Amino acid sequence: MSFLIVSSQRDPKAWVQALKEQDPDLDLEVFPEVADPSKVEFALSWKHPHGIYKNYPNLKAIASMGAGIDHIINDPDIPQHIKITRVIDEQLTKDMSVFVLSLILDHLRNLSHHYCSKEWKPVKYLRPEEVQVGIMGMGVLAVGVAEKLIRNKFNVTGWSRSQKEILGVTTFHGDDQLQDFLEQSNVLLCLLPLTSETENILNKRLFERLPQGAYVINVARGPHLVEEDLLEMIDSGHLSGASLDVFRKEPLPEDHPFWKHEKIRITPHIASVTNPSTVVPQILENYERIKQGKELNNVVDREKEY
Amino acid sequence: MSFLIVSSQRDPKAWVQALKEQDPDLDLEVFPEVADPSKVEFALSWKHPHGIYKNYPNLKAIASMGAGIDHIINDPDIPQHIKITRVIDEQLTKDMSVFVLSLILDHLRNLSHHYCSKEWKPVKYLRPEEVQVGIMGMGVLAVGVAEKLIRNKFNVTGWSRSQKEILGVTTFHGDDQLQDFLEQSNVLLCLLPLTSETENILNKRLFERLPQGAYVINVARGPHLVEEDLLEMIDSGHLSGASLDVFRKEPLPEDHPFWKHEKIRITPHIASVTNPSTVVPQILENYERIKQGKELNNVVDREKEY
Repeated sequence: MSFLIVSSQRDPKAWVQALKEQDPDLDLEVFPEVADPSKVEFALSWKHPHGIYKNYPNLKAIASMGAGIDHIINDPDIPQHIKITRVIDEQLTKDMSVFVLSLILDHLRNLSHHYCSKEWKPVKYLRPEEVQVGIMGMGVLAVGVAEKLIRNKFNVTGWSRSQKEILGVTTFHGDDQLQDFLEQSNVLLCLLPLTSETENILNKRLFERLPQGAYVINVARGPHLVEEDLLEMIDSGHLSGASLDVFRKEPLPEDHPFWKHEKIRITPHIASVTNPSTVVPQILENYERIKQGKELNNVVDREKEY
Repeated sequence: MSFLIVSSQRDPKAWVQALKEQDPDLDLEVFPEVADPSKVEFALSWKHPHGIYKNYPNLKAIASMGAGIDHIINDPDIPQHIKITRVIDEQLTKDMSVFVLSLILDHLRNLSHHYCSKEWKPVKYLRPEEVQVGIMGMGVLAVGVAEKLIRNKFNVTGWSRSQKEILGVTTFHGDDQLQDFLEQSNVLLCLLPLTSETENILNKRLFERLPQGAYVINVARGPHLVEEDLLEMIDSGHLSGASLDVFRKEPLPEDHPFWKHEKIRITPHIASVTNPSTVVPQILENYERIKQGKELNNVVDREKEY
């Protein structure tokens, strides 16, 4: 029985090191150099080449290296019996919360605008209590972000597919309540999982339902956003701007119009970076559970796609 | 008996309006058009032309329009018997706290660096709990800022001339303890009043005592900082950069080297802006106290200069 790491777009070194430190006896294979595919029962995966998992006849589970699992389930060739798990990590949530707070404060106080423009032009600023942040998605990350924002005096609402309750947050759910949610959000924050239902959800029709001058933040996944629609709605003046940390193609191509747009603030996918050494224990716990035939932790509902 | 407004560098319109709204019977004079100087007993002042207050023989008090009174007491021609007051306003403290938090988060997460550089280059980020913010000055604004930072998981220390205690803050005082204070501050935040003792306090000797890579924030007054020393210490690599909201000359001249320095982040004196209508009640309260011969509120110690 062996443990496979698949990380073809990022160097897996830090993961290999953390795994070996925490379990020196682990029978570890690193894709694509796999001695015996039939021995592999568990894979730790990040943006694998589609189709490869068919080649591991005894594979039982694929663990995402991060909170998102869209990069796994968008491969149609993963047999249905294979369990998919994701990372739930307090540090990821904390980092995301601080990052979102930073983005919103930058918007309120126009810091980067002043820094980049290199002109002495004071502009009116907004206070947290004057802003309503509407969070799309009410998962673990969103709950952490909402708490951080509330502690900093923001008004926070949340919208999700099914009904949820979070202390201090006015929540909305489903298509019926989307209008009420959107029309009062001065800042719209996307923290949705990427699924076939949420892809392209940040589009012109949705933006039109936001109040005039609303600001859009996407820290979830690039394909949530219809890029041309964002440009159109900012240029028409309906939206006041956007902070984007994720893109359809990363790194964002040098000739992409977002780079030159002065109302679009770009960060290179830095909201929260998984730290292998803090996450490896939960991965090894699931590997142990596979060995013992137990239920896994943090399993994703493949139908819901999150 | 009349009430004089002196605001030669900023349009006093909003103040006139707020005063008239809140006391329609007020006998108001706006400098320099003063009908009868001998009737003036109270002045509301912002950056007055030096020497003018000698011309008001019955003047009893000068109220600053803001939290700082350096622009009043740096005029040597104000008779000693004249009381000087400053504004203490909860909204000013709140705005300053949010602003400082924004500046520090921008530094930690490199937001404006990413926004302005327009390159896809992720860099390592710092977390609040890894940072020790050393606040110089422990007045009303500093207490508000410290509380805000502590609530956001920063480590906070404070330094002031005389001993002070603030919940959750390790405090230092006097020259003897300055070294201990400085050597552990990764972020140095200046919130001192501007006095003859604190002018030029942010200089090379002080910067050298900060840890390698420390970051400097000045939101107090321009003359606290020796500008050439800051440039030298950033260019030598000892300091990692600075966020500056105040300058010796404002607006910062277009040809000033700070504008072009990529490690210096400039904002146009926007930390907290006094709102006349929320501050006028405390000004009118003091005017009433003058009439009745009572002690004034928020009087400055002219010897200490704050």
